[in-house]
Amino acid sequence: MAGGIGERFLAALEGVVGAAAVRAAPADCWPYGYDNSRRHAAPGAVVFPASEEEVAGVVRLCAEHRIPLVARGRGTGTTGAAVPTPGGVVLSTERMARILAVEPDDRLLVAQPGATNAEVQEAAAAHGFFWPPDPTSAAFCTVGGNLAYNSAGPRAVKYGTCRENTLGLRAVDGTGRAFRTGVRTTKGVVGYDLTRLLVGSEGTLAVITEATLRLVPLPEATATLRAVYTDVGAAARAVASVMAQPVTPCALEFMDGNAIALVRERPEADLPAGAGAMLMIEVDGPAHGIDHAAEAVARAASVEGLVDLRRARDATEVAALWAARKALSPALRQIAPKKINEDVAVPVSRLPALIEGLGALARRHRIRIVNFGHAGNGNIHVNLLADPDDADEMARARACLAEVFDLVLRLDGTLSGEHGVGLEKQPFVGRELDAHVIALSHAIKAQFDPFGILNPGKVFPPPDQEASARSRR
Amino acid sequence: MAGGIGERFLAALEGVVGAAAVRAAPADCWPYGYDNSRRHAAPGAVVFPASEEEVAGVVRLCAEHRIPLVARGRGTGTTGAAVPTPGGVVLSTERMARILAVEPDDRLLVAQPGATNAEVQEAAAAHGFFWPPDPTSAAFCTVGGNLAYNSAGPRAVKYGTCRENTLGLRAVDGTGRAFRTGVRTTKGVVGYDLTRLLVGSEGTLAVITEATLRLVPLPEATATLRAVYTDVGAAARAVASVMAQPVTPCALEFMDGNAIALVRERPEADLPAGAGAMLMIEVDGPAHGIDHAAEAVARAASVEGLVDLRRARDATEVAALWAARKALSPALRQIAPKKINEDVAVPVSRLPALIEGLGALARRHRIRIVNFGHAGNGNIHVNLLADPDDADEMARARACLAEVFDLVLRLDGTLSGEHGVGLEKQPFVGRELDAHVIALSHAIKAQFDPFGILNPGKVFPPPDQEASARSRR
Repeated sequence: MAGGIGERFLAALEGVVGAAAVRAAPADCWPYGYDNSRRHAAPGAVVFPASEEEVAGVVRLCAEHRIPLVARGRGTGTTGAAVPTPGGVVLSTERMARILAVEPDDRLLVAQPGATNAEVQEAAAAHGFFWPPDPTSAAFCTVGGNLAYNSAGPRAVKYGTCRENTLGLRAVDGTGRAFRTGVRTTKGVVGYDLTRLLVGSEGTLAVITEATLRLVPLPEATATLRAVYTDVGAAARAVASVMAQPVTPCALEFMDGNAIALVRERPEADLPAGAGAMLMIEVDGPAHGIDHAAEAVARAASVEGLVDLRRARDATEVAALWAARKALSPALRQIAPKKINEDVAVPVSRLPALIEGLGALARRHRIRIVNFGHAGNGNIHVNLLADPDDADEMARARACLAEVFDLVLRLDGTLSGEHGVGLEKQPFVGRELDAHVIALSHAIKAQFDPFGILNPGKVFPPPDQEASARSRR
Repeated sequence: MAGGIGERFLAALEGVVGAAAVRAAPADCWPYGYDNSRRHAAPGAVVFPASEEEVAGVVRLCAEHRIPLVARGRGTGTTGAAVPTPGGVVLSTERMARILAVEPDDRLLVAQPGATNAEVQEAAAAHGFFWPPDPTSAAFCTVGGNLAYNSAGPRAVKYGTCRENTLGLRAVDGTGRAFRTGVRTTKGVVGYDLTRLLVGSEGTLAVITEATLRLVPLPEATATLRAVYTDVGAAARAVASVMAQPVTPCALEFMDGNAIALVRERPEADLPAGAGAMLMIEVDGPAHGIDHAAEAVARAASVEGLVDLRRARDATEVAALWAARKALSPALRQIAPKKINEDVAVPVSRLPALIEGLGALARRHRIRIVNFGHAGNGNIHVNLLADPDDADEMARARACLAEVFDLVLRLDGTLSGEHGVGLEKQPFVGRELDAHVIALSHAIKAQFDPFGILNPGKVFPPPDQEASARSRR
């Protein structure tokens, strides 16, 4: 579909944003071709607009020349959603990175898409507030990327995802038209909810140029607990028990036995004997009530199979309790640099069945699977460890992965809790979504992006592939 | 557009749902023609499907015959959204009123659209949970209606609206195809967010046949405070001060001086002299921390201009403090049975400017305006009192109303915080939404409802009217 980028197109791009804001040399373009999925495709040009007007001009030009365009924050996504169409345009939001307003009385903050999550948190914290979404990459990832993926993190269990914490947007559709969605109030029901239609749409409907974010007051106090269990069944029962009582934790993180085995030998981990699963639990709220809240959660977490439950008394102890969890990612990277990392989610009550089912799949396919994640949302990071140089093991891992997804869907779950679809999970989307929902989604995309230039081929299988996949079923 | 209902169509309808589930006699149809806007249009038939399959069959038939269809709960809406197209079909959800599942571990409840809000609350409460949306009409209004309007109530200030508390839906589009949106988990990012696209779309995109609702644990304790101020400016400053500190109230209700004047003489009101504005504040949470929470909110509410601040010590005192607020609606109905009741919302910091601006408009147009509402969301019910038998006063009220909307939009507000658009505010939608957003919305509707049979003419001005309105600007 791409018409290919020629001199005339580049000159026109420079006319819109200035020559200094266009890069077309292959060496300059290369670094804008990857994301954290380790996929890569070289764009034909990278453009750095500084305003919504310039974004609109760039999109209009791409529409006219039928050149695919992908908006890009910092490339921390894990699904290939920000990897460009080969030879297409990358629109980097680096020069649209300002915090435009913080309004504590109205509990909102207005940011450009290139501002990092950390910059948003810092600006909000100066007024005693925070923005709930807290992906692991918060120090680097951008608001635009967070919104495109509906990214979240541990805090979502109490405070929700981007969807629950975005009041309104400004955006440019695939014809280069700018528009405004949503409101500056926490209630508003005039017209369709285009704000949430754009959140999570992975840049396929419009380029976000400004976001009005809902702020939440910073809690006065936090308490951190670590609960160790004999086995994952006990830990999963504890999660359900915690979620069925009134004190909702602000983090409820899970590690299975394989994850514990990976970090057990690290000196900082300090894990008791017989640790088959572990929960990290945090509660926050008014300083006065924090002990009672911690006790309520500790009681709920004290199910049969509990080996050890500790509460950190100071910052040093908080760090010590988190040590095992924090050691996990480096340990995983060390033993399996190219692990397959999925982020499925199931209803909390189905966690025991999920973990048990994953164990059975691991045995059957002879693949080591390490599970950890945000248990309060039932959002588990399933890591299939396979050596990419071992073709047989990789084939087993891929076969296993397909069965992991089937298991998740049998348990009323979803293929992605927070990473999104991009290219990685696109072939599996048809297993989760109704064919008619996919058809409606294509139809909606065609209204926002009639020339199909906005991040084509991401999220949904192209209509023709989808139809032929259906006919094969 | 309506083809008109004939014998052949009625026979076909009976073929889908059974003869007992179709009413076509004018006397039977009449009561299904109104809503709480006091508008009325007689439908040509009322149909009572008992399953999604029957809903799909009815919609398919209407699509085939190009007969307009509106889904209807209990008709408690205030905007005419549920008033049928004259001679069209009303699809009543009365026979789809079951609670299908309550899953406390997963914090969710599955309901059919005809279940009332109260029935949902009752089923959830049996497990220690509630569903946050709490419109005043909760005893009668249905879940389907709540979702169609994105209805909320006082609790939204802390717990959000339908949008933040709906996990997934089943629905039937305008061609009679059933589909499923969303997930059974609190996180999920596979595909576009069609759940929230349907929530608040007032039946113009699809008929909701099942809803998976997010439950929240019932708080252990609640504290009720009443704060009386010399004037609305002081009360508005108190609202901003309360919203800028960490304890978010679960109700923050406002009455202005005119509202107080209406109920002052009632024996149950018990208002101090010099009361020019009033806030009702509730906080909820763990029993142990409730006193501290109440004190934090009381401190924040104690701004200059505070006349009196009381906290209820028991249920009798709670009832006494709420008495003035509860006396207001009957008092209003008595003196102005046909008042114009709007539900605009502005950012909390703009409340003083809103109330002041409304005062100026009232004086200029010689219309009495009474304001009260959900101040924590900036969601104010603006009541224009006019005698419908006084043509001159009614004309002044209509002129005033148009200026009320302009004022709200100048203050970055929205025309509706929770009632929706329907027919009442449809002529004003173009003042709030970009022309391009309206065009995109029409385009989206055309994908879900290609024959234009689902609640036509509601929310958005018809495309032709819109275009001609634009050309006149």
